[in-house]
Amino acid sequence: MSELEKRIRKKSLLSRVMKPEDTIKFFKEAGAGEKVLDLGWSGFTPVGYPKVVPIALADYVEQNGLQGKWKFNLFIVASVGVETEDRWAQLDMIDRRWPYQTGKNIQKAINAGKIRFGSKHLSMFAQDLKYGFYTKDRGGKLDFALIEASAITEDGGIVLAGSVGSAPEIIDIADKIIVEINTGVPSFEGMHDILSTDLPPYRKPYLITKVNDRIGYTYVPCDHDKIIAIVESKMPDNGRALTPPDELSKTIAGHIMEFFKHEVKMGRLPKNLLPLQSGVGNIANAIVGGFVDGDFENLMVWTEVLQDTMLDLFDTGKLSFASATSLSLSNDGFKRFFDKFEEYKSKIVLRPQQISNNPELIRRLGCIGMNTPVEFDIYAHANSECVAGVRMINGLGGSGDFERNAYLSIMHAPSCRATKTDEFGISTVVPKASHIDHTEHDIDVLVTEQGLADLRGLAPKDRAREIINKCAHPAYKDYLLDYLERAEKQTGYAHEPHLLDECFKMHISLQQNGTMRFWEVK
Amino acid sequence: MSELEKRIRKKSLLSRVMKPEDTIKFFKEAGAGEKVLDLGWSGFTPVGYPKVVPIALADYVEQNGLQGKWKFNLFIVASVGVETEDRWAQLDMIDRRWPYQTGKNIQKAINAGKIRFGSKHLSMFAQDLKYGFYTKDRGGKLDFALIEASAITEDGGIVLAGSVGSAPEIIDIADKIIVEINTGVPSFEGMHDILSTDLPPYRKPYLITKVNDRIGYTYVPCDHDKIIAIVESKMPDNGRALTPPDELSKTIAGHIMEFFKHEVKMGRLPKNLLPLQSGVGNIANAIVGGFVDGDFENLMVWTEVLQDTMLDLFDTGKLSFASATSLSLSNDGFKRFFDKFEEYKSKIVLRPQQISNNPELIRRLGCIGMNTPVEFDIYAHANSECVAGVRMINGLGGSGDFERNAYLSIMHAPSCRATKTDEFGISTVVPKASHIDHTEHDIDVLVTEQGLADLRGLAPKDRAREIINKCAHPAYKDYLLDYLERAEKQTGYAHEPHLLDECFKMHISLQQNGTMRFWEVK
Repeated sequence: MSELEKRIRKKSLLSRVMKPEDTIKFFKEAGAGEKVLDLGWSGFTPVGYPKVVPIALADYVEQNGLQGKWKFNLFIVASVGVETEDRWAQLDMIDRRWPYQTGKNIQKAINAGKIRFGSKHLSMFAQDLKYGFYTKDRGGKLDFALIEASAITEDGGIVLAGSVGSAPEIIDIADKIIVEINTGVPSFEGMHDILSTDLPPYRKPYLITKVNDRIGYTYVPCDHDKIIAIVESKMPDNGRALTPPDELSKTIAGHIMEFFKHEVKMGRLPKNLLPLQSGVGNIANAIVGGFVDGDFENLMVWTEVLQDTMLDLFDTGKLSFASATSLSLSNDGFKRFFDKFEEYKSKIVLRPQQISNNPELIRRLGCIGMNTPVEFDIYAHANSECVAGVRMINGLGGSGDFERNAYLSIMHAPSCRATKTDEFGISTVVPKASHIDHTEHDIDVLVTEQGLADLRGLAPKDRAREIINKCAHPAYKDYLLDYLERAEKQTGYAHEPHLLDECFKMHISLQQNGTMRFWEVK
Repeated sequence: MSELEKRIRKKSLLSRVMKPEDTIKFFKEAGAGEKVLDLGWSGFTPVGYPKVVPIALADYVEQNGLQGKWKFNLFIVASVGVETEDRWAQLDMIDRRWPYQTGKNIQKAINAGKIRFGSKHLSMFAQDLKYGFYTKDRGGKLDFALIEASAITEDGGIVLAGSVGSAPEIIDIADKIIVEINTGVPSFEGMHDILSTDLPPYRKPYLITKVNDRIGYTYVPCDHDKIIAIVESKMPDNGRALTPPDELSKTIAGHIMEFFKHEVKMGRLPKNLLPLQSGVGNIANAIVGGFVDGDFENLMVWTEVLQDTMLDLFDTGKLSFASATSLSLSNDGFKRFFDKFEEYKSKIVLRPQQISNNPELIRRLGCIGMNTPVEFDIYAHANSECVAGVRMINGLGGSGDFERNAYLSIMHAPSCRATKTDEFGISTVVPKASHIDHTEHDIDVLVTEQGLADLRGLAPKDRAREIINKCAHPAYKDYLLDYLERAEKQTGYAHEPHLLDECFKMHISLQQNGTMRFWEVK
């Protein structure tokens, strides 16, 4: 019996096994080329996404000159590999795309008005999809679900691969399902905890009070009549390699570690802290690195994605358990992971992101949320997605789910970044954020390498001084303080002083002069 | 036995009964005049707040020339009567004030930099208070709780009056408690459902799946040794009178009723809708009026405050049950309420606002959130609190709790308002909101008397056209569309086009010319 046959435990489905290119006919039958088809894919920060079918579709479009003619709406809760969606963007195969992406071509197309992209809190995307809000003109359904899976159970349930994301909702609302069973890696069976999203007024409490509680199935229940094709894949996830943390990130992580120690001392955090959420990127890595080298023990993680450094933290014995929606590991990380598969598996659970990012659970568990914004302003409004207020990077992701609902809502970033002409050309601290995803009502603590601003209980003008003094880069401190003082005078010390004709002058200068320091421009 | 004696069922506490003016000594002993004291009051939109003790304190300050010398930090979750906090503001008795207020003097002082005001999501204020975030320099405690109550139980528990708000947390963290028992009105005992806020990692699920579920006590458990004084009050709540809805509000309500009918028809809402949340004010009233005259039956309400019109809706038999944190009735409304006390009481439960506004419950129940912002922009970012981005009105209130977590997040406002010199001087639809409390990621539907924009599933540029076409006033439509088109061209059709040097020109013109229509200014 082949590995594929072993993985398909419902034997009547064996007749639906086919080659990737044989699935093209289903898209033709559904009207590809005549109308835009609605597709939902599994996958999350690029792990557990379908590979061979999207690539077969891209090949077909390319070989037949169908660029711009075969169009799809893509509902995929987070980024998937560049060899799939970014290539689709290049081939002009995408009309709408929700709610998070990465890739040069897809970003370019979004910011040229060619792909209609919408960003959304990840926990809400999943439920809104299920509510039918994204495809309400066609009864709230999807044409196809493309799902990477580890196996199919005796009852036709789908055992997912290295991520859950919004696969349960996509499987639920799709008219037809194409499953890619990845036999190139071990089955992830047993790692998932799946509960479908039910509709109000019949929704139930999520009875999780500890990070390692389980409330669901190990597979996604599925009407197997909807499975029209099963395709074998051996392609690995196109995982992101991480660079080791730089000095600046380590300094930021150091401020945060000091803060945690202080909070434990003051009795506002237990000794083993509270469940940690950490975003992606260099600073997030450095923070996990800080825990690897630090004194905290019996740590718990309740987060969206697990990056390579989490394996280091497991290996120290300081991390007891982690709950996430995706194993966002690099290729090397996956090697390590599979080498000690049973050990890691016993300490990790993967949940639907409707649950991993659910306000109910983030708030109940009292998570510590830590995420990196593009910029934040002197009153603690933060921008997570649009450069200069207009150009989309990746999307909001789960930052809003965590920053709003966490026990402690922390955001961290370098105080400034270089441009081509000015080593301090871009300040993270600005008078007014050019796009706002997180409001002043949602953030407790801001951190840069300059220092940590604890904003809890501070009124706006007190907050502004704390942020400028603790977080701003020296190249910007004087201007920001001067802006604040002039704004105070001009508004008569209003609640939240601003100069509406000056608040974006730094951003405009960056566009025109290549630096936010307009006062230095000759 | 006097009514007061009957209400104090724990007889050992009778010895702590005193006159309001006799409580002054406690504040002196605690250091009033030497340091700023931290006070928590009960009360919500002004119902259930302490009256005779705050007035006695104000009298004392006034009679002894202590203005600006006796200072207090006031933690009161929503507005209380003008005869208390607004008079305190006039007497310069307030240093910090969180998180929502009303009153001419207090607003003036906040916007003149004299009172340090902070706004916060109401559900979070309660828990952050309990976490000790607001008074972290003194161990997270309050000097005094001032609580209006209906009665004290045999065990020393406090039966609250017409609102709950954050009284449970305030009673919990206060060093000393002064209780005002209001014998001027019937006891509200039996209407409350009180569960204290517990701390992570020991927090439990709130096991409410229906609006009328009960999970708590009818009183606030309390260490009665902390009760240092009990004072009798007969002062009524200084309730807000409501004006009948105008034509414009009725038109807005009409659009919303049509939308609900459509959603029921499409199968996205059940016949009796989902639990309704409705803010305060004229439009909210008109919506309830729409239900009074409409066809929907077996309605449920899960909201913050119940206004007079809810009594009308109960009287039609169309409203089955309502959960709130305050009976925000007018004086006439309270008369009606007490006339049919037992009947209304059986259909209403009052909860702590940490629970009435909790994301867990708003999301689980699938509430329909409806609130009025100051302004919203073409991409659906909304401003709930700061005029021209700087001047505080009342505060965010619970709008963020509901708009973020509701099944349907609706905001409604008139499309424009008059100024002294221009009948269409202020547009609600602006290029960019001057202060952002609710982001584009949180809002599903925007409504003005012009029409209703259903934004679900729309990308930003599509959203902008929908909002301008459906919601903007004709006096602003051409400019807004022109702004959008020029911004698209200038940014190369970026994700969310803006002209950073023009986006606040309407706001600046309003300040300088008394109208946002700068293109009409000669």
